[in-house]
Amino acid sequence: MIETNLDDFPTRVLKRVESTLDAILPPVSVQPARLHEAMRYTVLAPGKRLRPLLTYATGAALGVDDGVLDHPACAVEMIHAYSLIHDDLPAMDDDDLRRGRPTCHRAFDEATAILAGDALQTLAFQTLAEAPGLSAETRVGMVSVLARASGTRGMAGGQALDLEAEGQVLDLIQLENIHIHKTGALIRAAVQMGILAHGGLEPGPIDRLDHYAKCLGLAFQIQDDVLDVEGETVQIGKTAGRDQALNKATYPAIVGLAEAKAMANQLINEAIDSVSIFGERAQPLIWMAQALLGRRQ
Amino acid sequence: MIETNLDDFPTRVLKRVESTLDAILPPVSVQPARLHEAMRYTVLAPGKRLRPLLTYATGAALGVDDGVLDHPACAVEMIHAYSLIHDDLPAMDDDDLRRGRPTCHRAFDEATAILAGDALQTLAFQTLAEAPGLSAETRVGMVSVLARASGTRGMAGGQALDLEAEGQVLDLIQLENIHIHKTGALIRAAVQMGILAHGGLEPGPIDRLDHYAKCLGLAFQIQDDVLDVEGETVQIGKTAGRDQALNKATYPAIVGLAEAKAMANQLINEAIDSVSIFGERAQPLIWMAQALLGRRQ
Repeated sequence: MIETNLDDFPTRVLKRVESTLDAILPPVSVQPARLHEAMRYTVLAPGKRLRPLLTYATGAALGVDDGVLDHPACAVEMIHAYSLIHDDLPAMDDDDLRRGRPTCHRAFDEATAILAGDALQTLAFQTLAEAPGLSAETRVGMVSVLARASGTRGMAGGQALDLEAEGQVLDLIQLENIHIHKTGALIRAAVQMGILAHGGLEPGPIDRLDHYAKCLGLAFQIQDDVLDVEGETVQIGKTAGRDQALNKATYPAIVGLAEAKAMANQLINEAIDSVSIFGERAQPLIWMAQALLGRRQ
Repeated sequence: MIETNLDDFPTRVLKRVESTLDAILPPVSVQPARLHEAMRYTVLAPGKRLRPLLTYATGAALGVDDGVLDHPACAVEMIHAYSLIHDDLPAMDDDDLRRGRPTCHRAFDEATAILAGDALQTLAFQTLAEAPGLSAETRVGMVSVLARASGTRGMAGGQALDLEAEGQVLDLIQLENIHIHKTGALIRAAVQMGILAHGGLEPGPIDRLDHYAKCLGLAFQIQDDVLDVEGETVQIGKTAGRDQALNKATYPAIVGLAEAKAMANQLINEAIDSVSIFGERAQPLIWMAQALLGRRQ
């Protein structure tokens, strides 16, 4: 039965994510049509949906209904999508390819891409504030957590540190500091959405889930760097070898490819250990950790 | 006594706005320093603080304590500041001067300006979610109202319509449609913050205050267009004649300068009439409407 439950997990929640995003995003039949089109183009592009899946997997570990997780999970995904659009801009990483398709500013134009990112961030917070089935206390707590994870002490701050570091020689601690903020904070927030949706929880289980999220976030980034070296453009959906071309600090560059892979493996094991206290209910969290290492795109 | 109270109003609340913004904005002593510096550079530049003042003036009409308005008022101002930074970017209006100083991307760089705008939006929602002295219900209602005013059916949508309209010949209805979204929505939200902070209010007074905000918002935009024609760069703090240079549709261009001024006057009278039901407590709202017409910067 656990097996069935687990097999069912990714399919079941992915369907929820896609249909919720489609329902939340403003339709192209409404003005300003081009802006709405750009938002939908980026958010509805095929993606792994790592962050929303983490919200549902955390909810599963705590016995939370999928229904109250739909909006918080999609709010995190919209913050992620906004950050991709802005990070790809010419003034930032200047990338042409994302999720196997032209980046937002290439498919539309720079002004539209800036506005689409802006509006996606706004929509994320609106979505949390108006999430059905949750108390005002919970919703406002989610806004606070997601904002802190996205702001200058989280994701946006990480991107600023990353830009500052371009062309510089970083050590492992400096590199990790960037990733803890740039990608780690939002991954932790995705797990926090599941915790907050549950309501009251002891500090013990919260710490376990947060530790899982920290390990997973770092492993994800290491794996991303590994794929940038090993993968083909068509597989990873963005320009392969891009980090090297930009002379960006990466795990393989600092510790070597074999050691980077070993680090990712170690972190995934630690993540899985951390959620063992949830027993069978941790299966989706464990599945996600394992899938991350095996992922090819 | 009313006179004293009113004389006191702008000085009293401006002091609150400046010190609250200073306290909310992350310090430059904390990393990422340059990003924090860019945020402070834009937000703390001398400004009229029209939107926060409107929140306090609305609060005054309803007998709400200034103390619970500080954070909501500053949240609206941070959304406004973020929109200025992004609107000034080369891909958008490409402007070099704002509030008498180099625009954010000119003083820093484009990437920092994009991130500063992003992070200011985030901080606005965090500030509302964590505003002291207000119930969770009120705070989450404020997040929802501010998000709707800022998103694709509000400010961001207005900017998209404005960009689409560049170089096109607009009629009065099309021009108003842009301004209702681009600047009007946020001005209405500033008044809504005061209403929400009060808690329960009958639809009648809410409609009066909202009508005041609508009239004021439109009058403000007309006056802005008038100043672009009549003002000197040094007075208005941004490049004079910029609208004409960009071939942008303006009220003076469509209805003529005299008629534009008459329209602004008419709207201000309508705004003042609308809040007469609040008696002496409406003095700050009335003062603001009158000051708007007399403003030189």
